[in-house]
Amino acid sequence: MEMPAPDSAVLSRKPRIVARLQEVLGKTGVIHDEAETRAYECDALTAYKCPPLAVVLPSSTAEVAAIMKVCHQEGVPVVPRGSGTSLAGGALPTADSVILGVSRLTRVLEIDYDNRFIRVQSGRTNLSVTGAVEEEDFFYAPDPSSQLACAIAGNVAMNSGGAHCLKYGVTTNNLMGVTMVTMDGQVLEIGGAHLDAAGYDLLGVICGSEGQLGVVTEATLRILRKPEGARPVLMGFDSNEVAGACVSDIIKAGVLPVAIEFMDRPCIEATEAFAKAGYPMCEALLIVEVEGSDAEIDEQLGVIMQIARRHNPVELREAQSEDEAKRIWLGRKSAFGAMGQINDYMCLDGTIPVSALPEVLRRIAEMSDEYGLKVANVFHAGDGNMHPLILFDANKPGDLELCEAFGADILKLCVEVGGCLTGEHGVGIEKRDLMTTQFEPQDLEIQMKVKDVFDPGWLLNPAKVFPLAASEARRKRRLAA
Amino acid sequence: MEMPAPDSAVLSRKPRIVARLQEVLGKTGVIHDEAETRAYECDALTAYKCPPLAVVLPSSTAEVAAIMKVCHQEGVPVVPRGSGTSLAGGALPTADSVILGVSRLTRVLEIDYDNRFIRVQSGRTNLSVTGAVEEEDFFYAPDPSSQLACAIAGNVAMNSGGAHCLKYGVTTNNLMGVTMVTMDGQVLEIGGAHLDAAGYDLLGVICGSEGQLGVVTEATLRILRKPEGARPVLMGFDSNEVAGACVSDIIKAGVLPVAIEFMDRPCIEATEAFAKAGYPMCEALLIVEVEGSDAEIDEQLGVIMQIARRHNPVELREAQSEDEAKRIWLGRKSAFGAMGQINDYMCLDGTIPVSALPEVLRRIAEMSDEYGLKVANVFHAGDGNMHPLILFDANKPGDLELCEAFGADILKLCVEVGGCLTGEHGVGIEKRDLMTTQFEPQDLEIQMKVKDVFDPGWLLNPAKVFPLAASEARRKRRLAA
Repeated sequence: MEMPAPDSAVLSRKPRIVARLQEVLGKTGVIHDEAETRAYECDALTAYKCPPLAVVLPSSTAEVAAIMKVCHQEGVPVVPRGSGTSLAGGALPTADSVILGVSRLTRVLEIDYDNRFIRVQSGRTNLSVTGAVEEEDFFYAPDPSSQLACAIAGNVAMNSGGAHCLKYGVTTNNLMGVTMVTMDGQVLEIGGAHLDAAGYDLLGVICGSEGQLGVVTEATLRILRKPEGARPVLMGFDSNEVAGACVSDIIKAGVLPVAIEFMDRPCIEATEAFAKAGYPMCEALLIVEVEGSDAEIDEQLGVIMQIARRHNPVELREAQSEDEAKRIWLGRKSAFGAMGQINDYMCLDGTIPVSALPEVLRRIAEMSDEYGLKVANVFHAGDGNMHPLILFDANKPGDLELCEAFGADILKLCVEVGGCLTGEHGVGIEKRDLMTTQFEPQDLEIQMKVKDVFDPGWLLNPAKVFPLAASEARRKRRLAA
Repeated sequence: MEMPAPDSAVLSRKPRIVARLQEVLGKTGVIHDEAETRAYECDALTAYKCPPLAVVLPSSTAEVAAIMKVCHQEGVPVVPRGSGTSLAGGALPTADSVILGVSRLTRVLEIDYDNRFIRVQSGRTNLSVTGAVEEEDFFYAPDPSSQLACAIAGNVAMNSGGAHCLKYGVTTNNLMGVTMVTMDGQVLEIGGAHLDAAGYDLLGVICGSEGQLGVVTEATLRILRKPEGARPVLMGFDSNEVAGACVSDIIKAGVLPVAIEFMDRPCIEATEAFAKAGYPMCEALLIVEVEGSDAEIDEQLGVIMQIARRHNPVELREAQSEDEAKRIWLGRKSAFGAMGQINDYMCLDGTIPVSALPEVLRRIAEMSDEYGLKVANVFHAGDGNMHPLILFDANKPGDLELCEAFGADILKLCVEVGGCLTGEHGVGIEKRDLMTTQFEPQDLEIQMKVKDVFDPGWLLNPAKVFPLAASEARRKRRLAA
């Protein structure tokens, strides 16, 4: 994945830039030693690496604003970074950029149970938001796999989801407001702890804008009362088609499980070998979980089990205990780790209409044969968010490139069947050049014009989201001016 | 409410403009006779009237695009109009504008039950969206009071809600994608029938932008399976404070009613005199409705009734039959009509944190005494969306202005307690000059810059949403260029 050449004028001014940043944050808040900046050279898309010019670690919105003013004046690109768990290269630095890390922005600013919200600094981890309210039996719903590590800043940037988002929605459905600092150091308040927004609702476009419109320093998040209980059912089927039809029928029936997870045979095999969760060896597994009181759970699972039985499952196992529930989830939660034991893999992220699931799986299998690379599929099937894992050998020359080409074909297939290039990982550098398969030129142009509004110089999180040629043209416009 | 002086150059070109519009739509698609354009001189905020230059009634996205190109070339402002039910003056014409009515854009384009969406032309009425899918037991959730008449185009423009939005969310939570024509005639596709959006998610900012960013011609809407049943409970309390505390406790308990409606004593009295719904005469009434199977309803109402009893209700009546349920809703649904029988009234729309409800009602009562104008309050209390109805006499000189001043004070109070100027009616002309109480200058400026992106000449739905001086400055920039 090509990255733009760094701005040599910025590189040559490094000492002055570092000194100015230190004036704001002191010496401990600025990392500029080459050995130390290496810790920030990549995110979870580790195939791509580049140490930044420097790293800053502010503790407040005011400090972020002061840093942004310095960087704006000096023409230094800024790459905002949550916890660095992006799988799409969303926090990959350029050599001339300052990484703005939010790891010191971890405070809880306000908890309001009456009005069901919490306001936090954006560096707080996803799980510790729930941690702050769980003694009152509340929780924050979006639950990315990385929730122990990932920061709310990154969740907002990527509009993160999770296995339990079928019922509760993704980040954009649980975000009420943000404080955001623009590239020129202005502090904006967008949304808040109330229904609706007067005027234009900019919150939706900020959520998922991958740190390109501003640096989110504070977030107001919807918190929900914890359900009384939850119970999963494990279902096995002898074809992907039948499992897909079962998912469609559950959705159509109007019951609302909190999660419907789908694993195909390669994923089941790898997972079972690794985690020994007791999964049956079959073509497709579903984990369907419902929540509520025991009576509500019984009623909903009654409907769901009846639908499942109509599809002749080879396995149909309702968790009878807390322990059994944990074992059912154990395999699914180990899936990525299990694949990592076997091989290097690339985790894709796209969405498709639920009804296209069998066709998409069939065509991925065909492509897998053509490319000679194995694929394991794990889905948030209820909302059509798929995560194909393509296995490759990072030490074999050309294998990464082959894997990327295969991945691109899968994502194009998602768009072809009426879906979308992303689900919850964002575009980052990984999919920027695929954006032209999703959007007509005028649709892309209007997005880039919105970027122009917030960051006319295109300094924020460069070379991501849009095709490289398009964003470079914008950047060069600034350099020429 | 002051409106800007029309562009005399446009007025003088009326014959040519009409002829060019007729080239696109034929004679039957363009209304320009002064007697006939009067039918479009106002929306449901009838205090303000101005006949437009002409009215166009296109039947397709292509026709809308062709019209927009003509208007763009001729420098004619365009005012998009759904069904004209705006209570905030969102579709008020200027004398130099072309009203673009969507009343011929009523077709259903696609229904997909497997993936739970419907795609319609934007002139289709809210209720007839449900009408198109109800034989398969599906429905479209947002339910504004005007749902029999109001168009999806207006729902998208205003981010409309309704009594049952506590559970299902407002328009923005049920809108998946739009086809939108920009002022210069470009056709954009935003969002679609899939989770997430690659790149920037512009759908959120389009929903609620009051027809100022483009003309939405088609919409993809989430449809849901109809619940098995629903049952309301009527609760009476002897103070607003206690009723407010009961609402807070229900919300905190984690049950999710589909509606929590709140009426204060003046509203109860007026409604009961008109509709004879059998409401008790007390200080505050709540209607709490839950949905699901009989067992689910029993369980949820069990929790809710227990909470209500803790607050010593003077009335607690669970509907025992379909008929009784209808009677409980009858009063609430007649509230606006009932007030209209007594007096002229202005219906406000703001949101507050649920916990601020008692304080806000107390202060509105104080202001009512100061202004000498009566107020009846009816709320979507579950999400803090209030609709104070201020009674006044339209034939008494100065009374409208007094009413407007009182209304402005109420909306400022909403902002002061942490709420928002709007809930579901939008800003329109009604609240444009109050925007500065909600937003700092930089927050307003960034919204106006987003408008610059979509409509650099500020031709679309002029003199709304933003303070008049600010939008006039933008318009004059174009005229001077």
